[in-house]
Amino acid sequence: MAVYTDVTDEALFAFLTEYDLGAVLSFKGIAEGVENSNFLLHCEVGFFILTLYEKRVNPADLPFFIGLMEHLAAKKLSCPLPVKRRDGLSLGTLAGRPAAIVTFLDGVSTRKPDARQCGETGRALAQMHLAGHDFGLARPNGLSIEHWPDLFAASRGRADEVSPGLAREIAAELDFLQRRWPRDLPEGVIHADLFPDNVFFIGEKLSGLIDFYFACNDSLAYDLAICLNAWCFEPDGAYNATKGRALLQGYQSLRPLDGRERRALPVLARGAALRFLLTRLYDWLNVPPGALVRPKNPLEYLGKLRFHQTIDHAGEYGLPE
Amino acid sequence: MAVYTDVTDEALFAFLTEYDLGAVLSFKGIAEGVENSNFLLHCEVGFFILTLYEKRVNPADLPFFIGLMEHLAAKKLSCPLPVKRRDGLSLGTLAGRPAAIVTFLDGVSTRKPDARQCGETGRALAQMHLAGHDFGLARPNGLSIEHWPDLFAASRGRADEVSPGLAREIAAELDFLQRRWPRDLPEGVIHADLFPDNVFFIGEKLSGLIDFYFACNDSLAYDLAICLNAWCFEPDGAYNATKGRALLQGYQSLRPLDGRERRALPVLARGAALRFLLTRLYDWLNVPPGALVRPKNPLEYLGKLRFHQTIDHAGEYGLPE
Repeated sequence: MAVYTDVTDEALFAFLTEYDLGAVLSFKGIAEGVENSNFLLHCEVGFFILTLYEKRVNPADLPFFIGLMEHLAAKKLSCPLPVKRRDGLSLGTLAGRPAAIVTFLDGVSTRKPDARQCGETGRALAQMHLAGHDFGLARPNGLSIEHWPDLFAASRGRADEVSPGLAREIAAELDFLQRRWPRDLPEGVIHADLFPDNVFFIGEKLSGLIDFYFACNDSLAYDLAICLNAWCFEPDGAYNATKGRALLQGYQSLRPLDGRERRALPVLARGAALRFLLTRLYDWLNVPPGALVRPKNPLEYLGKLRFHQTIDHAGEYGLPE
Repeated sequence: MAVYTDVTDEALFAFLTEYDLGAVLSFKGIAEGVENSNFLLHCEVGFFILTLYEKRVNPADLPFFIGLMEHLAAKKLSCPLPVKRRDGLSLGTLAGRPAAIVTFLDGVSTRKPDARQCGETGRALAQMHLAGHDFGLARPNGLSIEHWPDLFAASRGRADEVSPGLAREIAAELDFLQRRWPRDLPEGVIHADLFPDNVFFIGEKLSGLIDFYFACNDSLAYDLAICLNAWCFEPDGAYNATKGRALLQGYQSLRPLDGRERRALPVLARGAALRFLLTRLYDWLNVPPGALVRPKNPLEYLGKLRFHQTIDHAGEYGLPE
């Protein structure tokens, strides 16, 4: 949510000589995206977003992310389309960072999604899952259940500073999930971070998805479980079954869940809650000096986790029989 | 250079019901402006900048700033034009702050102005001075020579932490300026902060001026002296007389300096250097916890001040006889 790297006009103009975008009319840093520096770029041919990939993005992953946006856009999913340079590449170097230009996607993200917006999001997630099935590249999920023990170990000693008993509670949940995690679900390319700030709407209509920089291969229903956590709880922590039903129905209108996925949903939702609890806990305890981003409260996800622990079957989320 | 206030989509939509801009197509925080929160706003009728005035702007000054932009734009100076609400006002309230929408001005600011850009800037400054002469409102300069003693007092005790001997050097300069400050120069509305980041270019052509939130009434030649400091020194601290000559010639092509202004220029340049030295020194010594903006190094302006101390007459800046 910040601009981490300063780009001079001289460096920008040199970078743009590789593109056919005409003269630069405007260039402004924007507060969008979690890990990278983003700029609004207005050129004679239109508006674009210029992204500088900062150090938390592994350059080796960039062909996957860029290729995925190209693949999804070609399949008519509304998402930013990387702009090719004259040499055919979609990636260059600017201010010492890998950098890409993507098309500007209109739309406004919502802070308080309503049920209709949850439904549109579920549908778009299913559209992405279907569109991604024949994408040629793969990227393992760097924040999958295999990585949670290490992530937990990095915060365990100080977890109780955030909430007394938290370390013990996470340890028990991790133990449960490791025993019960479903291993035989349909897999594919998932967004893995489809929070409301990554979904744009114009009026009531969903206009596109952004920020594919956590995308990876994992079980498709786990992606839906992430959305249940991100979209269907109220600010006071209560689960909103109307929104849950809308999300799940929207998803199933394009890609119905199979029996294993339906049965697995409560465990997947617990796992998704734990994954965000763990990363937020780590970020909360490790704010770098001079940080421009304030960490999110991990306890929001502890509350969600405890809710999912009370769920026995997916019908309780609002999933139609 | 940051977004200080969070604006929800709900609050934005409510705010915009007072305007005739059509549906919102995009809304993004941008890293522009020093003291306020700025957002790119794309509506059906076009692109705009939405500004929330943060606590360092005195709400009582807003009619002056807004009215000045309206006045200058009506006189064909290229600057942001405040957009009126249905009730005829140009100011509203959003997220608890005074807020205004202005037209989006194309152009890119430069980090390393060349002589031609200095010339265009001088010309635009003169254009602003001429256009402002019949503006009906006035605002005293809150950072004029009368305020420098208090500003210095707030940093004096710690000034030598930044550079040994600095407190004594500033005290001597302040004493000199108080004895020699010219009091009879032509006055009018000045920009007072026309640094390169507040001037936009498209290609070689100046496309507009922004950020009028330091504008006030003071001597016009003092504004030019601020620009000499801001535009005509190289990164290594050397004064570039070619750029100085271009700036001064550009200014004089529209508004020739009179004899008093020419004679006063070296003293005014010293005063302008001291003013930025003092505010940067204060900001350097008083970074608030959690600050999103890194303070600028005050010593850049100590070097400029020392240069101006060597100047006997304006011809040495490149001013044609």
